[in-house]
Amino acid sequence: MPVVRVALAQLNLTVGDLDGNVARVLAALERAEDAGADVAVFPELSITGYPPEDLLLKPGFVADNVRALNRVVRATRSCAAVVGFVERGRAGGIFNSACVARGGKRVGVYRKRHLPNYAVFDERRYFETGRGGHRLYEVGGVQIGVSVCEDAWQAGDGPIARQGELGADLIVNLNASPFYAGRWREREAILRARAAEAGAPIVYVNQVGGQDELVFDGNSMVVDAAGDVRCRLPQFVEEVAVVDVDLDTGETSPSVLASPFEVDHEVYEATVIATRDYVRKNGFSDVVIGLSGGIDSSLVACIAVDALGAEHVHGISMPSRYSSEGSKDDARALAERLGIDYRTIAIEPAHAALLEMLGPSLGERPPNVTEENLQSRVRGVVNMAFTNELSWLVLVTGNKSEVAVGYYTLYGDSAGAYAPIKDVFKTEVWRLARFVNDRAGREIIPEVVITKPPSAELRPDQVDQDSLPPYEVLDPILEAYVEQDRTRDEVIAAGHDAAVVDRVVRLVDLAEHKRRQSPPGARVSPKAFGKDRRMPITNGYRR
Amino acid sequence: MPVVRVALAQLNLTVGDLDGNVARVLAALERAEDAGADVAVFPELSITGYPPEDLLLKPGFVADNVRALNRVVRATRSCAAVVGFVERGRAGGIFNSACVARGGKRVGVYRKRHLPNYAVFDERRYFETGRGGHRLYEVGGVQIGVSVCEDAWQAGDGPIARQGELGADLIVNLNASPFYAGRWREREAILRARAAEAGAPIVYVNQVGGQDELVFDGNSMVVDAAGDVRCRLPQFVEEVAVVDVDLDTGETSPSVLASPFEVDHEVYEATVIATRDYVRKNGFSDVVIGLSGGIDSSLVACIAVDALGAEHVHGISMPSRYSSEGSKDDARALAERLGIDYRTIAIEPAHAALLEMLGPSLGERPPNVTEENLQSRVRGVVNMAFTNELSWLVLVTGNKSEVAVGYYTLYGDSAGAYAPIKDVFKTEVWRLARFVNDRAGREIIPEVVITKPPSAELRPDQVDQDSLPPYEVLDPILEAYVEQDRTRDEVIAAGHDAAVVDRVVRLVDLAEHKRRQSPPGARVSPKAFGKDRRMPITNGYRR
Repeated sequence: MPVVRVALAQLNLTVGDLDGNVARVLAALERAEDAGADVAVFPELSITGYPPEDLLLKPGFVADNVRALNRVVRATRSCAAVVGFVERGRAGGIFNSACVARGGKRVGVYRKRHLPNYAVFDERRYFETGRGGHRLYEVGGVQIGVSVCEDAWQAGDGPIARQGELGADLIVNLNASPFYAGRWREREAILRARAAEAGAPIVYVNQVGGQDELVFDGNSMVVDAAGDVRCRLPQFVEEVAVVDVDLDTGETSPSVLASPFEVDHEVYEATVIATRDYVRKNGFSDVVIGLSGGIDSSLVACIAVDALGAEHVHGISMPSRYSSEGSKDDARALAERLGIDYRTIAIEPAHAALLEMLGPSLGERPPNVTEENLQSRVRGVVNMAFTNELSWLVLVTGNKSEVAVGYYTLYGDSAGAYAPIKDVFKTEVWRLARFVNDRAGREIIPEVVITKPPSAELRPDQVDQDSLPPYEVLDPILEAYVEQDRTRDEVIAAGHDAAVVDRVVRLVDLAEHKRRQSPPGARVSPKAFGKDRRMPITNGYRR
Repeated sequence: MPVVRVALAQLNLTVGDLDGNVARVLAALERAEDAGADVAVFPELSITGYPPEDLLLKPGFVADNVRALNRVVRATRSCAAVVGFVERGRAGGIFNSACVARGGKRVGVYRKRHLPNYAVFDERRYFETGRGGHRLYEVGGVQIGVSVCEDAWQAGDGPIARQGELGADLIVNLNASPFYAGRWREREAILRARAAEAGAPIVYVNQVGGQDELVFDGNSMVVDAAGDVRCRLPQFVEEVAVVDVDLDTGETSPSVLASPFEVDHEVYEATVIATRDYVRKNGFSDVVIGLSGGIDSSLVACIAVDALGAEHVHGISMPSRYSSEGSKDDARALAERLGIDYRTIAIEPAHAALLEMLGPSLGERPPNVTEENLQSRVRGVVNMAFTNELSWLVLVTGNKSEVAVGYYTLYGDSAGAYAPIKDVFKTEVWRLARFVNDRAGREIIPEVVITKPPSAELRPDQVDQDSLPPYEVLDPILEAYVEQDRTRDEVIAAGHDAAVVDRVVRLVDLAEHKRRQSPPGARVSPKAFGKDRRMPITNGYRR
């Protein structure tokens, strides 16, 4: 059996940017051609970026995407290209398709057969299902089968097995497979199973980069017929790799075998690329972060520096009458260690003015949650002034535990453009902070920030645990109730304290209206708040 | 042919409130039984309310819904009940089903065959497709066919035609069909076609009420085999009607034949019921509205009074250094005419404090958009203090034209719980204001408010048309670009000025991140902002 030279084009594409995406595809194709590749494999829907969402409902957009694809087709020479695009069928419907092109011409088109419509996916909103018999394509003297993403998740008689029966020597699978922690292991397992069914190696190419709340980690690979990973591209970086795949032995050369990151590392990198791409792909360069001296804002500042560079990150300390000296010192220390712009704007003047304005309506009373929210909202207003005046995007520092139970102020600390750690539970925030310091080999986030009891500092001596169960208790309840869709009764049956579960479940349900108005953030778990979890606000279910 | 006595149960259900929904179903069933009805027809998914969204992903919720259904089944006596519920299939999947029950037992279950997965619908995210042969059910000596909502939209050999072939004497169709302006005409047309195909009358029962952004208008009906509407329940009210349907003549008695409202009237009523149900079903009673003296907040105040009663509506005037005396007078006049609580809180103290706090960072400069946004955000903070302190929900007053082009301040005038006129274009706002005054037979909204040039009054002598094209020009462009999914090029080709279209399209695209953080509002058009239009924020498409 021969050797086939394959280019894996793990590209960072932008939804809707047809010209930019074509430019990236053409550059990768030229590299593949120059390297003498037989076939270059691109991600799912390379032309449009993934997911194009309701842009697909615009017939003009689909037509433009076909014109963009045709530019790629015309540019092909001896290296075949397998490129994802949106195909308009004769009956008017559209397909999530992969075009095989060579020598300036379309050789054929494969239509995705299994359309995910769960979790963050809405593909049946847009696409028709590909049907009919399978065919193979000859490249470099071997027969290849083509499939798209979810097609590879069909066991038994799915498209890949069918192409194996037809005699495919090699399977290529185009992907836009979103990241979550540990996802790479699941992908390897299914590719192993498919390769065994097909009796052929699989070339799996995934896109990389952030798109709103989704993160794509790349991690493209070649799995041989025996199920061994022979080639793996790194996570979270754009890369075009050209490798020879020996169809007899499954060996690839040269050796390209990146190691997947361990879980804290990959979650951290996911938040970094998500933040970088959200900021830059939307045309911005700088961000501003309210630095409280707490662990959440400290971690977000580290993410921002890794994403954008210290010179593009601005920290603001906004102490109130209740802020401790320790917190102010901690915030300053962090900013100094990161080398970022840092300023202090005390919120007392606006805080006092608002209290006085509201006095006649609200009457005399001791400070309460209304006053706490006022402080947070003044900070939101200050942050947003930097967006308006200097085009610095505000990064929101809330974590998944807080977002779940609504432990934040709507239009206050949740005001901003992007929330890097929105899908990271508080217990994981501590782990990521340790990771940051460990990797740096020095204390970037001050140790005291990691060890002190979390506090919103909106009233004297306040700590989170006045209002919430300890995070070690809270997070497993949230995982069961939110991520695993258990009911209150089931969470209690699993051994959690009934009164605590009742309180937590009630808080989660009541916070739905706040979450609906929160900024997007990086999805790093199998179920994030956002398009992943579509709960009604008006909801009478209490079990 | 006999006469069959049918109860149409046009109920206002609440998503997730299984006990409450069962109570409503049982009360209607008892009324039907007492009236000697042969069959009582309930809306689609009566047990769960519609749409239950991701509650359906909780197996415990589905199990609870089956238990709730069984309470209804056990309560049936001689009147058959056709009730929508979520059925768990043997293979583990779930179905959008209708249970036919009588004499305390299930007689059969129909599984919806056509699952909408477009616009606001995500049914393929949850449900399996009903398949297999059809059957009929004997009630009162006649054979009835059962179908659910979208099934009725299938021409030719759809479920209703097939049931007609089987010899159905009567078709019942359970619905949760969301409202938009003029929707009743489309429903009548398709029911007319289906009745002709089946050669039998159709009993169409729709739910009524607001559920987050969706509004259900009821408008349940009986269409005879010739396509004539013989019975029609009113829009926007809960009602159980019992009528005899003569299967020979198609006649119904007693005569229940409400007239659908003309378009401004039905849109207005839709915003009223949506607002009432959002407030009350979420456990609140009162709302607060920032009254600027402009037409949007004036109209929203009228809607709120009709929804909740004047004693539950609170108006706040929040003048800034730029507010005109005329506006303050207009706001007060409106509040007096509506008989609502009214107070004034000048925002100057917080406005001045914030300018001073930000001075060192932002430097000396003439007032600009940053300062305009500060004012709007101070108002947002003041409004929200009433939510925190008194549990008054904030109603947001933005219209669809503003929401489309982002002509509002995020966390400022868009801060709040619900936006009644979010899906109403500005040109339609004027029409609704006229409707309010015409219906009352007196000037509730002062004439000057309707005729003066719209202004945000955030700087001296500002009017909307400084920043935007005239609304008569803007709204048709938005209709084409947003509602009809035209591209920029296509809108220009349709005859709109290229420079204006470029500006509008750019504004719409750039406002996506603001809309994502806006409160829900009543959907009254075929494409509203919200779950109806799922555009990427990060979006490089510019054509």
